[in-house]
Amino acid sequence: MKITILGAYQTKFGELWDKSLKDLSSEAAFGAVEDAGVLFKDIQTAYFGNKMSPQITGQNHVGSLLAEILGTDIPITRIEAACASGGSAVRQACMAIESGQYETALVLGAEKMTDLAISEISVGLMGAASEQERESGLSFVGLYALMARKYFDKYGAGEKDLAAIAVKNHFHGSLNPKAQFPFVLTIDQVMASSMVADPLKLLDCSPITDGAAGLVLASEKYAKKLGSKKPVIIASKQASDTLSLSKRKDLTSLAGAEKAAGEAYRQAGVEAKDIEFAEVHDCFTIAEAMALEDLGFCKKGEGYIAVGKGKTRLGGERAINLSGGLKACGHPVGATGVKQLVEVYSQMMGRAGKRQTKKNKLALTHNIGGTGGTAVIHIVKN
Amino acid sequence: MKITILGAYQTKFGELWDKSLKDLSSEAAFGAVEDAGVLFKDIQTAYFGNKMSPQITGQNHVGSLLAEILGTDIPITRIEAACASGGSAVRQACMAIESGQYETALVLGAEKMTDLAISEISVGLMGAASEQERESGLSFVGLYALMARKYFDKYGAGEKDLAAIAVKNHFHGSLNPKAQFPFVLTIDQVMASSMVADPLKLLDCSPITDGAAGLVLASEKYAKKLGSKKPVIIASKQASDTLSLSKRKDLTSLAGAEKAAGEAYRQAGVEAKDIEFAEVHDCFTIAEAMALEDLGFCKKGEGYIAVGKGKTRLGGERAINLSGGLKACGHPVGATGVKQLVEVYSQMMGRAGKRQTKKNKLALTHNIGGTGGTAVIHIVKN
Repeated sequence: MKITILGAYQTKFGELWDKSLKDLSSEAAFGAVEDAGVLFKDIQTAYFGNKMSPQITGQNHVGSLLAEILGTDIPITRIEAACASGGSAVRQACMAIESGQYETALVLGAEKMTDLAISEISVGLMGAASEQERESGLSFVGLYALMARKYFDKYGAGEKDLAAIAVKNHFHGSLNPKAQFPFVLTIDQVMASSMVADPLKLLDCSPITDGAAGLVLASEKYAKKLGSKKPVIIASKQASDTLSLSKRKDLTSLAGAEKAAGEAYRQAGVEAKDIEFAEVHDCFTIAEAMALEDLGFCKKGEGYIAVGKGKTRLGGERAINLSGGLKACGHPVGATGVKQLVEVYSQMMGRAGKRQTKKNKLALTHNIGGTGGTAVIHIVKN
Repeated sequence: MKITILGAYQTKFGELWDKSLKDLSSEAAFGAVEDAGVLFKDIQTAYFGNKMSPQITGQNHVGSLLAEILGTDIPITRIEAACASGGSAVRQACMAIESGQYETALVLGAEKMTDLAISEISVGLMGAASEQERESGLSFVGLYALMARKYFDKYGAGEKDLAAIAVKNHFHGSLNPKAQFPFVLTIDQVMASSMVADPLKLLDCSPITDGAAGLVLASEKYAKKLGSKKPVIIASKQASDTLSLSKRKDLTSLAGAEKAAGEAYRQAGVEAKDIEFAEVHDCFTIAEAMALEDLGFCKKGEGYIAVGKGKTRLGGERAINLSGGLKACGHPVGATGVKQLVEVYSQMMGRAGKRQTKKNKLALTHNIGGTGGTAVIHIVKN
């Protein structure tokens, strides 16, 4: 696979009271197109990652909504895969180009989450979990807390180990002007934050966020015509797992992520050790520890150790979540998987400012839906 | 494009009180795989067309739900494009195969609609319309009634002309044991049914339906390996239009459908006149009159005349909606676009029983989201 990222754009992430889903989507769409150096009429198809719109404003059919606000009649297809909606939308766009039907595609991910009370948003988010999980009163932080407990029992990790993940991601986020929470945290601050679902505390959790991200993708041929030297997506894979945590064999690893990553490495012809930096789905700190292992960056049970040793920090062995991750940059659900690729693009283009990594030749993105029921992996080469 | 339909399955459509979304999806998935003569493990990826699940049961992330109930870890991607969710899911599956990443794909469309009161369902369905349309109290029948009024004014058609469309589709539906309403109607019965939104009466409207449909698609190479002589999808196109009716130039035609059809004819290398039968999106009778014109089967303003003359009836010049259409077969929203292709396959395989057409070599399906904000066209060759 050789799909060029011609352009990318991320809106500010945060509680954006003065911006609607339409405002955010349109800013990201036109921003990405402008960055790509093409005209909007050069865009031949589009994909839209969005989870919550029907539950928040009653609005389905957001593909057509986008067509209206962007003033186009090209096909725009909404993809919904819970928190992996964005990554899956990128993947469908890659395949649409690979199919030979299109040379260019716009991918948007957007979510407007702060229009509802937090209790209503929590109910909406739990739509990504199973019926039984919802009926038994579990929340996503509760589900990930179950995984954290199991991980602690199995590997001897503890709450401070997870806190170090939040601290590292907030350090990166403090260098990202687009981040929702661009400030540093200390281990003590994380440890002192209120318990949400034991052992996960408030500062182990990613926030509720408004935001959008956009990408313009192009075929190799089209990119060559433009003389582009821009980053190229060389692998795009997706896998599924059970919706319910109770149906899994192992709670300390996401089988879908492992499978999709394995397939992506084969597709790209690279190995885990070759990846120089990555954006991973740290919806909760425990998720990042597991991701490092599922992706093959660390041995099982050693993900948290790598973080503790500073190996995943800017300047370390393999920087993880230079954007600040979901934790500090924010998590506008449908936008997250797209934003991960925007961050990779920015780093590869040398535009990441204070959080710029020098090791920017080969990167991976890891986007998860629910508790791992959907996993989407992309590998990008500079 | 050459994507073989290896297998197809439709559940009974209707008010299926004893069946859940899971039951319907699983019946259609395994039914299609069995009909394809392959093993479930031969299916490499899947797409799921579903609109209403989040609004009806609070369940998002139905791709992963399907993975759980089907016992698989292949990628399953949910597509939502209002009432065109099914057709768009077929299209994404075609492109996934064309991309070269997969040789086989399962497409499912399913909707469980009768679990809510009709007033709640109406609100959910209006999620496919624009904010302004919802806030002004319009319903879908109201929106299509506006189109019907404009069509009447422009072309001189009347209520009896639309009634003839319902009568024709119920005649076809009476021959389809899977139909929700397998009985004939008379013009007088349609005319005597209660007015819903002037000039559309109850019997001009498609019903609220539970049901699912599934297809197994395969690459040309894979089909050849199996020695398949089954029908082949030779075109798959999608286009967008504004979400709001008020932003359109013309209310008597769906510009997205015209555009997608034009592109599909070019992709297939055929013309409108070559199409021998078609399944079109008759969510309301007026929609079928417009479809005949948008697809180029009739001149503008003459769609209703062709129906009146019996040209679109089984045995006529070009049979339309042999399944009974949305009107008589039923309209489980996300399933409809998939079911249209199941019907085409059944007709081409000579399995359509009493409604079998002899002219079964080249067919078209026309699946519409909302009032035309999304349009998906497929052309199939026997």
